[in-house]
Amino acid sequence: MQATACAHSNIAFIKYWGNRDHALRLPANSSFSMNLGGLFTRTTVRFSAALSADRAVVDGRVLEGASLARITAHLDYARRLAGCTLRAEVVSHNNFPTGAGIASSASAFAALSLAAAAALNLNLSEAELSAYARLGSGSAARSVPGGFVIWHMGEDHRSSYAESIAPPTHWQLIDLIAIISTAHKAVGSTEGHRLAESSPLQAARLATSAARLEQCARAVLERDFERLARLVELDSDIMHAVMQTSTPPLLYWLPPTVAVMHRVRQLRAEGVGVCYTIDAGANVHCLCLPEAAERVRAELSAIEGVREIRMAQPGGGAWLES
Amino acid sequence: MQATACAHSNIAFIKYWGNRDHALRLPANSSFSMNLGGLFTRTTVRFSAALSADRAVVDGRVLEGASLARITAHLDYARRLAGCTLRAEVVSHNNFPTGAGIASSASAFAALSLAAAAALNLNLSEAELSAYARLGSGSAARSVPGGFVIWHMGEDHRSSYAESIAPPTHWQLIDLIAIISTAHKAVGSTEGHRLAESSPLQAARLATSAARLEQCARAVLERDFERLARLVELDSDIMHAVMQTSTPPLLYWLPPTVAVMHRVRQLRAEGVGVCYTIDAGANVHCLCLPEAAERVRAELSAIEGVREIRMAQPGGGAWLES
Repeated sequence: MQATACAHSNIAFIKYWGNRDHALRLPANSSFSMNLGGLFTRTTVRFSAALSADRAVVDGRVLEGASLARITAHLDYARRLAGCTLRAEVVSHNNFPTGAGIASSASAFAALSLAAAAALNLNLSEAELSAYARLGSGSAARSVPGGFVIWHMGEDHRSSYAESIAPPTHWQLIDLIAIISTAHKAVGSTEGHRLAESSPLQAARLATSAARLEQCARAVLERDFERLARLVELDSDIMHAVMQTSTPPLLYWLPPTVAVMHRVRQLRAEGVGVCYTIDAGANVHCLCLPEAAERVRAELSAIEGVREIRMAQPGGGAWLES
Repeated sequence: MQATACAHSNIAFIKYWGNRDHALRLPANSSFSMNLGGLFTRTTVRFSAALSADRAVVDGRVLEGASLARITAHLDYARRLAGCTLRAEVVSHNNFPTGAGIASSASAFAALSLAAAAALNLNLSEAELSAYARLGSGSAARSVPGGFVIWHMGEDHRSSYAESIAPPTHWQLIDLIAIISTAHKAVGSTEGHRLAESSPLQAARLATSAARLEQCARAVLERDFERLARLVELDSDIMHAVMQTSTPPLLYWLPPTVAVMHRVRQLRAEGVGVCYTIDAGANVHCLCLPEAAERVRAELSAIEGVREIRMAQPGGGAWLES
């Protein structure tokens, strides 16, 4: 009745923003990501008759209220499948500092899903596990399979899951994450996804997203960095265009964010293999070719407002420990 | 055969970006602006048989090549109407420093059009003059009428002109222009308008622009600042979304641009009557209510990267001197 699982964080090349079904987190478009090796959550789930309520501790902090309720709701799904009514204790650690500006809900819900399923002896396929993780946090679906991953939007719970199109060894891309702000988001992703529809640009984003995903997957499979770079930046810019024009508007960029964007474009114009992509926050993920990494790191370090730079390489799928 | 005319610069509340007809500068959408009193171009046009070629001097600099050809082409239109083949000397001054980061083509072509028409004794209506100015620079159409102005996109040369919906005295809005960069644009507006179509978001912008213009005009007529503020920022953000997602992308914002955007939003949340709008450049026009101007100026001055703040109030239409 106990299991420990780990899952990597991931960075989307083709973004997820907006849901067709908020309760099930069925996304408004398919998305594409790379797992971030080295950045992961390790979670132990223990079901026990001795517990009168679920209990969760994340990085030493005991969760309460809405945060705990979100975990209970997520465990309930596995309990229903297993026909189990036992309460659980969840102990979770991120190997990157919480509040470091790196999103942890993807790795957290992927690890929680795998650990809960294993503790209850559920025999879920990778696709079923991915769909389950999706219920807790949309992008967690993408942290279940390894390497380069497509999350199919699907039509219902079963068909909305992620799968790998290439293992982490396929392409040694490096993600240099320029940490600009570690502040908690004023508007979190769950709430942000609800705002997507209020932007006059979201429909145009959705209408063109599948074509970008197809081209992105091809660029990854063919290791065509220049093509990937244009697509990744365009898709990020389009998502932020939607965010910035929603009601209320979400302007996640800070001054150093824009400084990094300009610098990355200048570097690429000079022939350096680097491009940017930005999630719902101010930090900038700078994807680069291995031979460009040293130069890019030095350039990013010189930008005012960049507090720290974290590095990740393609990571594998969620895994069980012990 | 000589006349001197002046015209103000203007700031668009509902933006012009993209043409249906590039040669005639027939815009892809109608736009709305306020003339900027105090910021103007003064232009003298003198037709003379003694000249063997057109000659133009702007702020003491003799124009050559493409800049001169653009003026000759503009004068040709008036010469054709007047049945005149004389060459002209054009002497133009901006009362704001050239390269101060304030667009001068709107005021320049409005003043040039009025001076040329007067020097040739053409009896053009305001609408005809506005349409003529549009041929030189789209936004110049809006600098011909006074105060608060709608430029109707129209269907052909004659029907694409601007007209005033309220005089400058209607509402004492103040424009505090945060000058962030005085660098020459890497991609000028004429070229930028051609890129608009390459953005996957331009069609959605155009489909929703007329509704914003109607609401904006009503907000101005009713002096409803809070409503105007939301519309003006949204329309600016939508235009920049198109720019940023065109191929090649145009990211006009610089780090201080984003700092000003955030500060303006914070101030408005605190009840200060201010909103931002940004043209094809890094500078930020901060529109404010008279009672907010002093506070806003102090706040803008404190932002790193804001080099200077210029002030303008609603201005009248183009006028003849002498």
